[in-house]
Amino acid sequence: MFQDFSDTNSKNACAERVLDLRSRLDAYGVDGFIVPREDAFQGEYVPACNERLQWLTGFSGSAGLAFVFRDKAALCVDGRYTLQAATQTDTSIYEIVHTSSQRPITWLKKNMSPTMRLGIDPSLHTINAYQQYKEALTLAGGSLVDITTNLIDEIWSDRPSRPIEKVVSQPILYAGLSAKEKSGMIAQTLRDSAVDAFIISQPEDIAWLLNIRGNDVPHTPFVLSYAIIDKMGAVKWFIDKNRIDDNLNAIIGDHVSYLEPSTITIALGSYTEKPIGLDPSSTPMWFAHALKGAMICHMPNPISLPKSKKNSAEIKGARSAHLRDGIALTRFLCWIAETAQGTQIDEITEIDAAKKLETMRAETNCLLDLSFDTISGSGPNGAIVHYRVNETTNRTFMDGDLYLVDSGGQYQDGTTDVTRTILIGNTPPKDAISCFTRVLRGHIALAAARFPVGTTGAQLDILARAPLWQVGLDFDHGTGHGVGSYLSVHEGPQRISKGGDIALEAGMIVSNEPGYYRTGSFGIRIENLQVVTPALQTGEMERPMHGFETLTLAPIDRRLIDTKLMLDDEITWLNQYHQRVLREIGPALNEQERAWLQDACAPLARG
Amino acid sequence: MFQDFSDTNSKNACAERVLDLRSRLDAYGVDGFIVPREDAFQGEYVPACNERLQWLTGFSGSAGLAFVFRDKAALCVDGRYTLQAATQTDTSIYEIVHTSSQRPITWLKKNMSPTMRLGIDPSLHTINAYQQYKEALTLAGGSLVDITTNLIDEIWSDRPSRPIEKVVSQPILYAGLSAKEKSGMIAQTLRDSAVDAFIISQPEDIAWLLNIRGNDVPHTPFVLSYAIIDKMGAVKWFIDKNRIDDNLNAIIGDHVSYLEPSTITIALGSYTEKPIGLDPSSTPMWFAHALKGAMICHMPNPISLPKSKKNSAEIKGARSAHLRDGIALTRFLCWIAETAQGTQIDEITEIDAAKKLETMRAETNCLLDLSFDTISGSGPNGAIVHYRVNETTNRTFMDGDLYLVDSGGQYQDGTTDVTRTILIGNTPPKDAISCFTRVLRGHIALAAARFPVGTTGAQLDILARAPLWQVGLDFDHGTGHGVGSYLSVHEGPQRISKGGDIALEAGMIVSNEPGYYRTGSFGIRIENLQVVTPALQTGEMERPMHGFETLTLAPIDRRLIDTKLMLDDEITWLNQYHQRVLREIGPALNEQERAWLQDACAPLARG
Repeated sequence: MFQDFSDTNSKNACAERVLDLRSRLDAYGVDGFIVPREDAFQGEYVPACNERLQWLTGFSGSAGLAFVFRDKAALCVDGRYTLQAATQTDTSIYEIVHTSSQRPITWLKKNMSPTMRLGIDPSLHTINAYQQYKEALTLAGGSLVDITTNLIDEIWSDRPSRPIEKVVSQPILYAGLSAKEKSGMIAQTLRDSAVDAFIISQPEDIAWLLNIRGNDVPHTPFVLSYAIIDKMGAVKWFIDKNRIDDNLNAIIGDHVSYLEPSTITIALGSYTEKPIGLDPSSTPMWFAHALKGAMICHMPNPISLPKSKKNSAEIKGARSAHLRDGIALTRFLCWIAETAQGTQIDEITEIDAAKKLETMRAETNCLLDLSFDTISGSGPNGAIVHYRVNETTNRTFMDGDLYLVDSGGQYQDGTTDVTRTILIGNTPPKDAISCFTRVLRGHIALAAARFPVGTTGAQLDILARAPLWQVGLDFDHGTGHGVGSYLSVHEGPQRISKGGDIALEAGMIVSNEPGYYRTGSFGIRIENLQVVTPALQTGEMERPMHGFETLTLAPIDRRLIDTKLMLDDEITWLNQYHQRVLREIGPALNEQERAWLQDACAPLARG
Repeated sequence: MFQDFSDTNSKNACAERVLDLRSRLDAYGVDGFIVPREDAFQGEYVPACNERLQWLTGFSGSAGLAFVFRDKAALCVDGRYTLQAATQTDTSIYEIVHTSSQRPITWLKKNMSPTMRLGIDPSLHTINAYQQYKEALTLAGGSLVDITTNLIDEIWSDRPSRPIEKVVSQPILYAGLSAKEKSGMIAQTLRDSAVDAFIISQPEDIAWLLNIRGNDVPHTPFVLSYAIIDKMGAVKWFIDKNRIDDNLNAIIGDHVSYLEPSTITIALGSYTEKPIGLDPSSTPMWFAHALKGAMICHMPNPISLPKSKKNSAEIKGARSAHLRDGIALTRFLCWIAETAQGTQIDEITEIDAAKKLETMRAETNCLLDLSFDTISGSGPNGAIVHYRVNETTNRTFMDGDLYLVDSGGQYQDGTTDVTRTILIGNTPPKDAISCFTRVLRGHIALAAARFPVGTTGAQLDILARAPLWQVGLDFDHGTGHGVGSYLSVHEGPQRISKGGDIALEAGMIVSNEPGYYRTGSFGIRIENLQVVTPALQTGEMERPMHGFETLTLAPIDRRLIDTKLMLDDEITWLNQYHQRVLREIGPALNEQERAWLQDACAPLARG
């Protein structure tokens, strides 16, 4: 299993650990210390050895930070995690600060007195974040003090060891371009931007650039490391040499040199008076310190955009991965239907279902990881947007539940992410059908959209919401995020949301996942991945227009659809999608499953 | 007539005038001079005495600027005006620079040598624009030199005199709030922003704040003047006292003091070391110079937002104005239909039609001005987005033309702006019906939209475009702009376009005007004004939702609609709109007109 449903709780250790941390403050001449959830690579997932916030506070969420002062401490978390944080940490030590109503900086300003000194590890905070702290403290009269030895690492006696697994190659069959070709592209951007080199501080960028993958953190196959690429395309990769085999070395190419991670300070220090680019929104402050002799040029990350625009090999891989993943998901949906419709309905729990789905994916024999922990929520649990089931919250299916399952796999040819909402039993809850139909209409409007070259995700976002808005409903998350190729399931720079100001370009993969959540009753989300298709310019089209090709293949629960609320074009879209699902998935199923799929994909008529 | 169709052409004077201007450069120690179209009030309309760009170059468009150097000169205009500029100016003197492909600053950088000095009148350029010139010149090595006597004014011997008409009061019946109440609101904002006073450099803000109107420029009833409001709500108004009657003075209130315009320099100079607010995007650079002793605080204009949110008296006025204006427009449409369908079709020209429409509006006995020069374009002229007919371009209607008429009136209770596209004769041009139907569907989608509080115009924009995008079509202008209450027909801060980042709030009036233009064939635009309605929160609505109430009342040409391309809800919207038009406009018409309107508003069935 790539997932674990145990209810981790280290609340009891909080008191001792915070005492230990406080005892170190004097030695560094500070009054407090910031402990962020991020590690030095700023990723969504961190290895066990970097789960500093969880070790200190017990809180296991994916975002948050703690301030620890001598006589007070705060754990700052967003709306998703306020309940969880209060359960997991010792609230006699930590005040829970809800960042939606009070920004961490606001809490700091209130709780700092003018002479106070706050310690910070500059390797764990981006330049932008660091500057915000600094400005806030300067206004409040306090000061920010760099501490280069992380105080948590000092007191964490049983800290897990760093990842040391071998780095593997991502074959050009799936990557589409050689590492050398990619470095050449980026070097051109650097020359155009008049910088000598660029700091690559994000492991997913290195994974893309060098066509390598690893197993350092859960669910995202990158290798925790830093690199520097220069304007001629030469790459200095700071990586433990024991992790690199000679044959990998040969595959990557001779433009890459391998340097021990500890030598990066010297390397950065050598760029005296040279223009060096970095992206302050993702690069830790530590780099700016180490680059003191250089001319630091803030610039957008030159790898983000080429990485996001999938080439034909990557799109081909995505199609294969989605077909394979769709077969597993369809088999799972069939299993749910046959079990939940029968007498066993009160024997399935959310954990059972999540395990079954992982098993189905594993039976493809190609599953390398899940792309994130499965969201497996029945009834009221489905209304918790970022629900992660554990043994405490685990719930048995009941007749009349909606079951929301958001999941994905990592395959060498692609990353998947799909959500289906299924009726358990036969009697949907009140309003579920009308709400599901509106969510579906929003999904279809976005899937079928055509839009001029240059259109951003922010412009398209409303298409997925308008049917809900019409009756006063909405959902409080983005409509879509970018997805990597056997990389991060959340990948920028494009997204479909109010703030998505990047134009959607051909080859970008985005999710399309409108939803609706009725607290205490049910949650609905319908999510497919779709790739931006090249601009069409047929006879009728005056202007080059982009569109989408849907990648995800799995039936959408017909029992939750009221075609009377749908337009003819929408019904046609759904029927064509289901015909495609049946045509592509059907042949891989056994007879019983295929019979079920045939029913699940039967055309709907106008109501 | 509030409009003039003569083809103004002063091209022949260009040579002499530019020679005269060049002869003055030495006296001021400069090598060139900038002549913008804007006057010191940055409005869309300027009085005859401030038409400096037109006097110098012959170009009469509403936006543009000229650079005049000793041996070269450029006239910079946007895409709307490139043809017109080339016709109106002497191109042996002025290079026509198309700002869509080359920004004026880019032209400057190319044509300035490092030692050159460019003269500028700081009273005619906003602080932001001035800074851009300054930065560009600094990079190019040249310098920007303030000239406080405008060089055009020096050489313009027969310059028309300044407007001196009496200022009139806008009664509280229409304004809804007294000048004193409004000043109190703005003063509160100033205290919240911690400034002592705010510079009001925009005449429409003064018109709103003091409940006054005037006749200084065509089509917008404001009074060219400046004012300063302080944090206690006291207003210094710099206005020629001969323009103010004692009774007006009494109506406005004792919080306003009247100062001669020439004394503003002294007044600004007196704010030593005090925090004074101004909006750098609209306030001329001259103010920053005059405020040298003060602490200048850049802030958003505090009047824009309250001015844009119409109160109940203003909305009531808008409804009355639109009913009246709708009667006039409907009578005109009837006249067009009866004349153009008959034998007189080849006797009507675009100018005839524009004059007839103005006559119909004048017959309401309430017309105080047009809100802009009527766009009256038939056939291919309809495809020119900002077409203004004159005696040279004037075209006679032909069977099979689409006729696009975009017009509006200024009434004491409100400002109107409406576009209708009408089939002349019986045979529409190829594709006209499908294109018209798509434009109409976009219009209806926006008119019927519901959206959560906080939604911006940028988010809604796509609703009006999606039906066109679906077949590769689009239009190159914004979807909607704000409209004043017996004030500017283009009023911020809200708009419905890709860049419209202001949330739409209850009471804001916006236009809804999608279009489609086929060069050389026809133009289509369907425009109504609509007001944002207060947030609804009925039982079904989980969240407070805004919507729109359509203000404009006039039939939409049924002969150009293909209901087969429309959704049932869209057909229902149109039929309900037409029933409302018939119900509200019908009683004011004569028998013949009413019979025509009954046909024009007859319900459409699904095709």
